[in-house]
Amino acid sequence: MQKFMYLCSRNTEIYLISYSNTMQIYKANILFTKERDQFEVIPNGYIAVEKGRVVDIYEQLPSTLASQPVTDLGDKLLIPAMNDMHVHAPQYRNQGIAMDLELLPWLQNYTFPEESKYSDTRYAERMYRRFVRDLWRVGTMRTVAFATVHRDSTRLLMNLFLEAGMGACVGKVDMNRNCPKALCESVEEAVSDNETLIAEYAKPNALVSPIITPRFVPSCTPELLQACGDLARKYNLPVQSHLSENRNEIAWVKELEPESRHYGDAYRRYGLFGDTPTIMAHCVWTDGDELRMMREKQVMVAHCPTSNLNLASGMAPIRVFLNEGVPVGLGSDISGGHDLSIFKMMVYAIQVSKMRYCQDKSLPFLTLPEAFWIATKSAGQFFGKVGSFEPGYEFDALVIDDSELNHDNYSLLHRLERFIYLGDDRHITHRFCRGQLIAEPKI
Amino acid sequence: MQKFMYLCSRNTEIYLISYSNTMQIYKANILFTKERDQFEVIPNGYIAVEKGRVVDIYEQLPSTLASQPVTDLGDKLLIPAMNDMHVHAPQYRNQGIAMDLELLPWLQNYTFPEESKYSDTRYAERMYRRFVRDLWRVGTMRTVAFATVHRDSTRLLMNLFLEAGMGACVGKVDMNRNCPKALCESVEEAVSDNETLIAEYAKPNALVSPIITPRFVPSCTPELLQACGDLARKYNLPVQSHLSENRNEIAWVKELEPESRHYGDAYRRYGLFGDTPTIMAHCVWTDGDELRMMREKQVMVAHCPTSNLNLASGMAPIRVFLNEGVPVGLGSDISGGHDLSIFKMMVYAIQVSKMRYCQDKSLPFLTLPEAFWIATKSAGQFFGKVGSFEPGYEFDALVIDDSELNHDNYSLLHRLERFIYLGDDRHITHRFCRGQLIAEPKI
Repeated sequence: MQKFMYLCSRNTEIYLISYSNTMQIYKANILFTKERDQFEVIPNGYIAVEKGRVVDIYEQLPSTLASQPVTDLGDKLLIPAMNDMHVHAPQYRNQGIAMDLELLPWLQNYTFPEESKYSDTRYAERMYRRFVRDLWRVGTMRTVAFATVHRDSTRLLMNLFLEAGMGACVGKVDMNRNCPKALCESVEEAVSDNETLIAEYAKPNALVSPIITPRFVPSCTPELLQACGDLARKYNLPVQSHLSENRNEIAWVKELEPESRHYGDAYRRYGLFGDTPTIMAHCVWTDGDELRMMREKQVMVAHCPTSNLNLASGMAPIRVFLNEGVPVGLGSDISGGHDLSIFKMMVYAIQVSKMRYCQDKSLPFLTLPEAFWIATKSAGQFFGKVGSFEPGYEFDALVIDDSELNHDNYSLLHRLERFIYLGDDRHITHRFCRGQLIAEPKI
Repeated sequence: MQKFMYLCSRNTEIYLISYSNTMQIYKANILFTKERDQFEVIPNGYIAVEKGRVVDIYEQLPSTLASQPVTDLGDKLLIPAMNDMHVHAPQYRNQGIAMDLELLPWLQNYTFPEESKYSDTRYAERMYRRFVRDLWRVGTMRTVAFATVHRDSTRLLMNLFLEAGMGACVGKVDMNRNCPKALCESVEEAVSDNETLIAEYAKPNALVSPIITPRFVPSCTPELLQACGDLARKYNLPVQSHLSENRNEIAWVKELEPESRHYGDAYRRYGLFGDTPTIMAHCVWTDGDELRMMREKQVMVAHCPTSNLNLASGMAPIRVFLNEGVPVGLGSDISGGHDLSIFKMMVYAIQVSKMRYCQDKSLPFLTLPEAFWIATKSAGQFFGKVGSFEPGYEFDALVIDDSELNHDNYSLLHRLERFIYLGDDRHITHRFCRGQLIAEPKI
């Protein structure tokens, strides 16, 4: 039996959108990136969705589907939803403050004191609800998030994603050195808390799942790194951490891990560098053997351009990663980054690549379809078949009402470009994850 | 006699705001930058305004003013309004499109064809109304704008600013070489059209006034540059143009003006470099004698960080300008820039300065108060006493309702920082220019 939901668009038209498992067909201006360097554009096209996945896209509806009801989204744009590949959920409160500080005083004075508050699940709930609501607002339907060391508030965050119906890999952070006492844990505690959450959440095809999360080499002893690697291997779980963000950090890792050839190698030695699917945030200074190893192990770069600018880390060589075949996604990195919108990360990624291009004309800057592809299909592979509208892909999608921006008969490609550069959450009218229409999460 | 206007805030409280010439007193959290490197912060302070100018600011209302009515803005922030020191009004339609192009194909395929349309004042009115409305939205109360070569649509833009009550220096663009025929004018036409507008608008203390606007050296013959310089001197009018934006352009100017020592010198020779108040957009590659000459002549840099990034021009050395005592303001440079908000220009200016700092640690990055001071008091000097709340300054102000962003007892400075980094036009509840409350311009 079908259930129906009535939605009111800003044009006061009423659309009928079903969220059952029977086939749904949406009609709209469909845009996505199957290939890295060009948009697929289907004006007034149809997309059929069944059991949460794309069946196919049609310029004209085939006769076999003629009896199916069609949800007509009018002149709106239908695009894949956004994926945020690196964000610190407990830094939500610090978003957009103390931006004049550099990394170390910022960690000591803002990051760590804030994370300490997450021992209190009531505080965590107040902040995490807003965080998930804000992800929803900006159209991010899949998130790879750092939580804190605290098991219970990490569980809470996972439950809030589940309650919202939005996909996420959530990491209980592991750390046991070079951090305040309140955030320091024993290796045994780390393993036990991780295993509790793994038992509860690690299921095949889960919408919300755990990810092994050693904070970064400087805050984890070799024993803890080894324990993290063992957990990843034992439960076949993905891994996330930070890599080669700034030069001081790299020098510090060299001191702490003298036997490693480079920062990436320090993760590899403990089974944390591509033995299971792995995301490394930043990689601003990655080159040489570290780069080669990322390609070989298909370690994904979570490129966080605003964070790199705000923390004066440098400019990650995204063109090099693309040329080398290293997978790349985009991350907001709240609160090193200040903007949660992955659309704005596309703009910044292009801009940073233009500054690199100024310095080295052999590295062409990112084009808009490339940035879009990175944010959607390239990033989405981390979650399975996510980030495209090809047959078999999970239907994660956004409906964009850009009528306010489209005041003079722009082409569909220019309309999408204007939404990416000028638009905001006001222009996103519907959000889908796995075929389900996602309502605004309660705060 | 007082006139009153009732305004409904987003909290549904009703405020009484008068817009007569009698004294007005506003109570709010007042923040501004008297000095370059620190905010003045007056929590729950009072500001008295008379005849459009600030009388003074008070922590407690003095007994001499006790009988005056006070408009209580509650917990909102009251800050100086924004000044946009470089923007191409007729590029409004092109905002956020074709961002993958570099300067020359972009000029040929988008900029010049669009400007040609402004021979039609009906088209101009449709676009310029939206442009002025959007400036209002983002809180920009003073604008230094390029129009097009067309006298009548330039007049229209000036009238729309006047109708809105918003301040502007508007330039009829002058150009007669290296441009499409439709935009090419004779020196005589340029002089005659300028003099027509000057006769109509150049008045002491005018809210909207003409500014002499040779597009840039490559598009103006020596005769036209000389005619522009003569107009500026004859009528004592300010000047705006572009300077040292990218290396190819600089090389081109060197070819076109072999007798000039540098790009800036090519303007100086024709009386267009500080003989009257002058703004030069970009100055990305300014150094040496050009820098010295800017300091000596107090030529203002309109720093356009998003444009510099989008067009891969480079990163202007703002710290150097500050160190040298060259005046600086911020410009959106639509449509080289994609974002009209000067708040977002502050963020980008800081970020660009951080990238420069990465390359040269002897050039500290801009702090938030510095970026705010540049956008307000430093830029505002171009219009007279504008951009601060010190006694005698014109009351150009914005009221910010950041309650949505202030969910956890942030300090006033952090609230302002969060609004600058995360906020948008939704958070600006009132806009004042010269003491007048400015209503949303009709489109």
